[in-house]
Amino acid sequence: MKFIRYEQADKTQIGILNQAGTDILPLSGLLPHRSYATMQELIENITGDELAQLKTALHTGAACPSVPAAQVKILPPIDKPIHDILCVGVNYRDHQKEASEALNDFKAAPRAVYFAKRAIHILGDGGEIQSRPDLDDQLDYEVELAVIIGRRGKDIPKEEAENYIFGYSVFNDISSRRLQNQHGQWFKGKSLDTYTAMGPVILHKSALPFPVEADVRSYVNNEKRQDSNTRFFLTDLPQIIEDLSRGMTLEPGDIIATGTPAGVGMGFRPPRFMKAGDCVTCEIPPIGTLTNYII
Amino acid sequence: MKFIRYEQADKTQIGILNQAGTDILPLSGLLPHRSYATMQELIENITGDELAQLKTALHTGAACPSVPAAQVKILPPIDKPIHDILCVGVNYRDHQKEASEALNDFKAAPRAVYFAKRAIHILGDGGEIQSRPDLDDQLDYEVELAVIIGRRGKDIPKEEAENYIFGYSVFNDISSRRLQNQHGQWFKGKSLDTYTAMGPVILHKSALPFPVEADVRSYVNNEKRQDSNTRFFLTDLPQIIEDLSRGMTLEPGDIIATGTPAGVGMGFRPPRFMKAGDCVTCEIPPIGTLTNYII
Repeated sequence: MKFIRYEQADKTQIGILNQAGTDILPLSGLLPHRSYATMQELIENITGDELAQLKTALHTGAACPSVPAAQVKILPPIDKPIHDILCVGVNYRDHQKEASEALNDFKAAPRAVYFAKRAIHILGDGGEIQSRPDLDDQLDYEVELAVIIGRRGKDIPKEEAENYIFGYSVFNDISSRRLQNQHGQWFKGKSLDTYTAMGPVILHKSALPFPVEADVRSYVNNEKRQDSNTRFFLTDLPQIIEDLSRGMTLEPGDIIATGTPAGVGMGFRPPRFMKAGDCVTCEIPPIGTLTNYII
Repeated sequence: MKFIRYEQADKTQIGILNQAGTDILPLSGLLPHRSYATMQELIENITGDELAQLKTALHTGAACPSVPAAQVKILPPIDKPIHDILCVGVNYRDHQKEASEALNDFKAAPRAVYFAKRAIHILGDGGEIQSRPDLDDQLDYEVELAVIIGRRGKDIPKEEAENYIFGYSVFNDISSRRLQNQHGQWFKGKSLDTYTAMGPVILHKSALPFPVEADVRSYVNNEKRQDSNTRFFLTDLPQIIEDLSRGMTLEPGDIIATGTPAGVGMGFRPPRFMKAGDCVTCEIPPIGTLTNYII
């Protein structure tokens, strides 16, 4: 089940994308007695009964009128995250190799690398990434599986990790390599405005076996750059959730970006960074395709 | 002028602390036609006229009844920050030396080091820091000047930096050194629950010349540990605001922690970390004193 945010007649709405990906069933029609104004509210409050009701409607063909997806503006599933994005660094062995060659002073840490990425707004599918050649000519892409937390938790044992997940999305951890190197820690090079893209939907966790084994791919101007599978994580998802929640409360709506495989621009010799006019697509087939334009 | 949040009769209120620091003038009495439910709302919306009105009331002795500070519960000036805290790393030369000796793979970056610190709640004066000896036996303190942003801005030239500041506070960047080392990037070791303390007040920027030259000191169990002055910043405040806002919008309510001087626990030989039963005090005389208890 794919949750999608969209704009129709100047109103922001939430719906469910049908199996074919062509039509949206508005939540207001499927759950007429319940209104979720934002995805955050939905993540925090949706009940098991409501989820079952939505699933039934989707499979039996709901009685309420649907909206052709092509006729509305698709929005990012979450606009303003409640906290900075929780990111896992170098979580595929092949990317660890390319990163260690391209980043200053890079050295594998004894445990998984975690850092934060600020996003005052998240870009959705079709959104424009504002390049800043005046600040940095090393604009890079990173396709990642995003995990959206559904339940508040702290000190979560890895065996219970799945219970704390709401769903998954496709994430582009857009990165400014020069700033990432210059400022010692990675935060600043990761956090420029429009450098976080996610979407087009949040796939509910019930749609995938756990831990997730999904292909992750990226393309720049339709040329494949990254192609791996989340089964090659160095630190798997249950361990990531156990690690991050140690002494640190995770909250519904928190987003975890789980790291990117080899094939980013800085990994090529010579490097192949993005520039205005380029188009970058991130794809995780069970979830969807996220395309953004560099301006 | 010192803005303070407090709880009285189960109600959260905002007031102004008097010059002696003994009494609070409730904002509801000083600005009867205007109500600010949260500090965030106040920072975003307070006008120059209102600030002038408050200043006059404070200097002439307001007609409205005041509340003895000792009789109410003082709350952190901001409870839930709108984004993760923006932190400057190793911003005093003497601390750079001790950090380079104590942290794995530490190397001075070509420019200022910026990282994020997650705080789902901020501790106020008197709040309890929950030690986690099961996770880390290297619990450390870092007194810092906190800057609270008052106005939305991007690509702010350093000459205009002061215009974007609302005020200042005393900040303790509580740090878990083992986690900071283990996870490569510093984020996780900085972001445990209760590891961010700020207060007791936000001093309005009009009270201090700019750039701020203020003493910063910390004490553990009343023994002085850190004693420096913000004039020894390696990267000064105008430059920090210019750097951080490059391509990245700062928003009202954003908190910048400007770095800590030498004298943190990891700098001693042998190191002197904190443990349950200890009491840590951070002090910046023009702003106030922030005391927290390790449990």
